[in-house]
Amino acid sequence: MLTDPLFEPAAEHFLGLQDRIVAALESLDGQATFRRDEWTRDESEADGGPALHGWGRTCVLEGGAVLEKAGVAFSKVHGRFAEGHAASMPGDGLDFQATGVSLVLHPRNPHVPIVHLNYRRLGRGETAWFGGGADLTPCYLNPEDVRHFHDTHRQVCEQHPRVADWPTLHRQCDEYFYLPHRGERRGVGGLFFDHMSANPQEMFAFVKAVGDAFLPAWLPIAQRHRDDLYGDRERQWQLVRRGRYVEFNLVHDRGTVFGLRTGGRIESILMSMPPLAAWGYDLHPEPGSPEAAMQQALVRPA
Amino acid sequence: MLTDPLFEPAAEHFLGLQDRIVAALESLDGQATFRRDEWTRDESEADGGPALHGWGRTCVLEGGAVLEKAGVAFSKVHGRFAEGHAASMPGDGLDFQATGVSLVLHPRNPHVPIVHLNYRRLGRGETAWFGGGADLTPCYLNPEDVRHFHDTHRQVCEQHPRVADWPTLHRQCDEYFYLPHRGERRGVGGLFFDHMSANPQEMFAFVKAVGDAFLPAWLPIAQRHRDDLYGDRERQWQLVRRGRYVEFNLVHDRGTVFGLRTGGRIESILMSMPPLAAWGYDLHPEPGSPEAAMQQALVRPA
Repeated sequence: MLTDPLFEPAAEHFLGLQDRIVAALESLDGQATFRRDEWTRDESEADGGPALHGWGRTCVLEGGAVLEKAGVAFSKVHGRFAEGHAASMPGDGLDFQATGVSLVLHPRNPHVPIVHLNYRRLGRGETAWFGGGADLTPCYLNPEDVRHFHDTHRQVCEQHPRVADWPTLHRQCDEYFYLPHRGERRGVGGLFFDHMSANPQEMFAFVKAVGDAFLPAWLPIAQRHRDDLYGDRERQWQLVRRGRYVEFNLVHDRGTVFGLRTGGRIESILMSMPPLAAWGYDLHPEPGSPEAAMQQALVRPA
Repeated sequence: MLTDPLFEPAAEHFLGLQDRIVAALESLDGQATFRRDEWTRDESEADGGPALHGWGRTCVLEGGAVLEKAGVAFSKVHGRFAEGHAASMPGDGLDFQATGVSLVLHPRNPHVPIVHLNYRRLGRGETAWFGGGADLTPCYLNPEDVRHFHDTHRQVCEQHPRVADWPTLHRQCDEYFYLPHRGERRGVGGLFFDHMSANPQEMFAFVKAVGDAFLPAWLPIAQRHRDDLYGDRERQWQLVRRGRYVEFNLVHDRGTVFGLRTGGRIESILMSMPPLAAWGYDLHPEPGSPEAAMQQALVRPA
């Protein structure tokens, strides 16, 4: 095993965060509850794939009143990268360990934004780092919601100035959650960071605080819009936006690609997929419509 | 421009095949017609992306009686690969040219199989080759349909024994349309080949004949099942199988990845996406059900 004094404490923290988020989301939904699946993996290279050992707990809620589908996953694994798959990562050698919590919520109401969170601790050889972030993907643009989500996270960064510069983390989020083939950002962003290996204790304190900021950042937005009126038009647009979410996750998302390459548990990796998604051909929202305003906000300035 | 005496004849053939398939599908559907979009590209590296020049015609039908969504695309382009993106291809240098026809049909009735076809001529430096194939993706297993689809293509191979060995091409199809993260084949296969540069004239004759086999291979199956009864259960299963189709196309499909990397027209590349798709968590069809039989047939023997 790799020596990283923060690995176990980080895992313990992420597991607790999962508990708190799951409890708060069940309370929000009021109708459906999470199914909690614990799993273990113990695959050696002799089994024919990459070596992977560890365990996790995947919590999924389907068919709720507020949440059409919600996944909150914890995992703690160690293994060996397949040759050639770790070229873009810090550290040396093929041994790695990883622990983290990740979440994707697909609300039923198109006026409640999709939201994603992931915080993780990784180690490769003697190098260890934190990564992650949280970002909002509305189907309809509501500047007040966006401001609240950003401000809540910005304030945490401002309390940890030695490790977390909000403008940088915010910009990195826009750069990361970007679909080059669409020329669109996935959503309105939030914060994103990776490969943060300096000041480990201070980073850990920041990761704890910013993880705790998720519920106050998102729950009020969900409460505000959970009963907004909508019809077929808004539903159809939501399904199309969810299609973009699928495109990002399967083509670009670092966590998904990492999971698929390291032979992770497929149901946990793909719990982020929407319950239902749509693709039309050459769709263009009507000029001046709320859908066009949303789309316009996602096109990154050249 | 690269010198390949078969490039223009192949392009002309693929364009004609597109015409014939589009006409036959409109006749099958009887309700909806194809929208025909011609496009041109003239991007040099000075525009900031990879160089790409050429034109295409994308034909898409949506909301038909038999076809919920159908895309049949022709393109003829030349350009330069971005550095590092051509490592797995034959030939030398970064200049390439490509022409081909591709098709994905998403039928409305879950008892009519999804079908895919693609035939293409590529050139890189002084090397040129044919590639492509056709494969069937049913939601419900019907051995008679599978046999008909395979036999129709097998017979063409048997008429071109010097270039097309059915057992090889059939096996290559199963190997290519495989989702390692699911441990499942995408469908029940057909034929697939790539990088076929020997005997170019005979290969061209085979590519013409096997492209012509598509309509007799698939139309009778669609006619037989277009009015089969189905309900919510079959529709839901169809949406889940379409989700797997999305996973394959965005994660593995060589044509999709080629298109995204070379800066192709996004609406044409992603016309293969289903109109609607679903993802559940840890779904397992009821043992002994028709859905379980289909799933079982897709699990590749170890």
